[in-house]
Amino acid sequence: MSGRTYAVIGTGALGGYYGARLNHAGFDVHYLLRSDYEHVRTNGLRIDSKDGDFTLPTVNAYRNAADMPRCDVVIVSLKTTQNHLLGELLPPVIADDGCVLVLQNGLGMEGPIGEIVGHHRVVGGLAFLCSNKLGPGHIHHMDYGQITLAEHTPDGSPGGETNRIKQIAADLEAAGIPVRTSRDLVKSRWKKLVWNVPFNGLSVVLDATTDRIMADKHARILAEQLMAEVVAAAAACGHPLDANITQIMLDQTATMTPYRTSMKIDHDAGRLMEIEAIFGNPWRAAKQAGLDCPRLESLYRLLGFLNGGGSCPPAG
Amino acid sequence: MSGRTYAVIGTGALGGYYGARLNHAGFDVHYLLRSDYEHVRTNGLRIDSKDGDFTLPTVNAYRNAADMPRCDVVIVSLKTTQNHLLGELLPPVIADDGCVLVLQNGLGMEGPIGEIVGHHRVVGGLAFLCSNKLGPGHIHHMDYGQITLAEHTPDGSPGGETNRIKQIAADLEAAGIPVRTSRDLVKSRWKKLVWNVPFNGLSVVLDATTDRIMADKHARILAEQLMAEVVAAAAACGHPLDANITQIMLDQTATMTPYRTSMKIDHDAGRLMEIEAIFGNPWRAAKQAGLDCPRLESLYRLLGFLNGGGSCPPAG
Repeated sequence: MSGRTYAVIGTGALGGYYGARLNHAGFDVHYLLRSDYEHVRTNGLRIDSKDGDFTLPTVNAYRNAADMPRCDVVIVSLKTTQNHLLGELLPPVIADDGCVLVLQNGLGMEGPIGEIVGHHRVVGGLAFLCSNKLGPGHIHHMDYGQITLAEHTPDGSPGGETNRIKQIAADLEAAGIPVRTSRDLVKSRWKKLVWNVPFNGLSVVLDATTDRIMADKHARILAEQLMAEVVAAAAACGHPLDANITQIMLDQTATMTPYRTSMKIDHDAGRLMEIEAIFGNPWRAAKQAGLDCPRLESLYRLLGFLNGGGSCPPAG
Repeated sequence: MSGRTYAVIGTGALGGYYGARLNHAGFDVHYLLRSDYEHVRTNGLRIDSKDGDFTLPTVNAYRNAADMPRCDVVIVSLKTTQNHLLGELLPPVIADDGCVLVLQNGLGMEGPIGEIVGHHRVVGGLAFLCSNKLGPGHIHHMDYGQITLAEHTPDGSPGGETNRIKQIAADLEAAGIPVRTSRDLVKSRWKKLVWNVPFNGLSVVLDATTDRIMADKHARILAEQLMAEVVAAAAACGHPLDANITQIMLDQTATMTPYRTSMKIDHDAGRLMEIEAIFGNPWRAAKQAGLDCPRLESLYRLLGFLNGGGSCPPAG
């Protein structure tokens, strides 16, 4: 084991899961919590996992970032709707030669975080995880779990595979977490959006699971058109994707178990949806690159209206 | 009074209202009904109107078009979702020198009706009417009521103001119905779509009244963008609208009483929405003219999905 220390900023279904995995493997992990703080300080964390259940009766739980020790790797696992808090939360927690691992969905989170801690201290991560919070400190890991790691660069160009990335990858693998590394963070983020834009968005607007979207002629055509817009946007922004990605994802979705997307789960629970990271930022990035994405923009605006009725609870 | 006879094909909130007005003024009117036939045959029609209530204790009610006399003016006031029935319904009802008055919402209904009865026997009408069916044969006329009449031509070019139009206008005016005539039917239909596309469509997808759409930043921008696409589509199809039409309609909508659109009322009641006439046909017409309308198409497809859960009751 490396002896690297980890902070988890946002101990929900995602941050709580990965933190607990590292913790369980012997790493020193420190968790920032809000609503679940009292419960987790007293009872620790409990993970029900398809790979075997485990509990951590005692964990390092904090209510305030200022009380946390400085850590080598600060995992940002808040919902992106909370990222306006990071200017306050990150500086006290990151070690002088430490880095931030942005383990969030969407596009364009790393830039503002780089402005806070310095761009050279930011690593991006994409989690392919299906997990749910069952109660305070109680997380259900249902499926998947792989993390893709990639270096952030200020201009979004490929950052290559650094030693830092390899070291974090080794820690995660030691904790039983499957890892891939990517040379191009922004391309990896666009690739994930090819699925997330149509299926997260349409699942909310149409109140539908993935199978109903795939089975309906109109909804499926619209999903394919949205995918094509995201693929075109990625290329316009200098990160062209493989030509067959849309077909591969459609084929995978057609054979999936009917699925309520994470955005639909958020919306049904009255939580704010992450529409800026997943829709607004990609739409604006394409626009800045000279490409109009009218279907993406329409979906963004429909969700923007629907988000107006939601509420925004604190993380953790 | 002219002595022209009228048939009403589809005796609902619209056809029942206008038929009863003509009937009340002394015209010979014959009504085709389905579900309300028994009730109306026995009890006639009852109109609660902002302009004064009236009843018609005995009316000429029919269950089958084949039993109706041939009439000089056959008003088509079915929902457009029922227009596939017209090939059977119209031929027995129209007099040799009679005409069909297509009093429906949307675009492109007159062409298929012209194929049935001959294009020279088709007149278009746009009703600006706010009315509801309260029960069988019982209609509430809440507001407005003006009809715009215009000649249909096979190629959609302006048909001018014929004697026939003037005669029907005189009948309607004699019955207390405000009338305008238009030289360009297709332009009048596009103009109405500038409002109907955004507000009917978004009211269903967003489950919202007009005031909530106008008050939300995202929804209002999307409504304006949809309006702009419809204006561009009208121009591409050879029927340019006045430059200020979008602003005029937005200003009117901003000062309206909060309003549940007719499409929203249909959808909430489990009835099929008229998505082909109001969305599909305009989108296809623009496409044929070489113009892509991605926002209009997206809205059409969202409504197409939502329409899949509806049911389609018989007219009348």
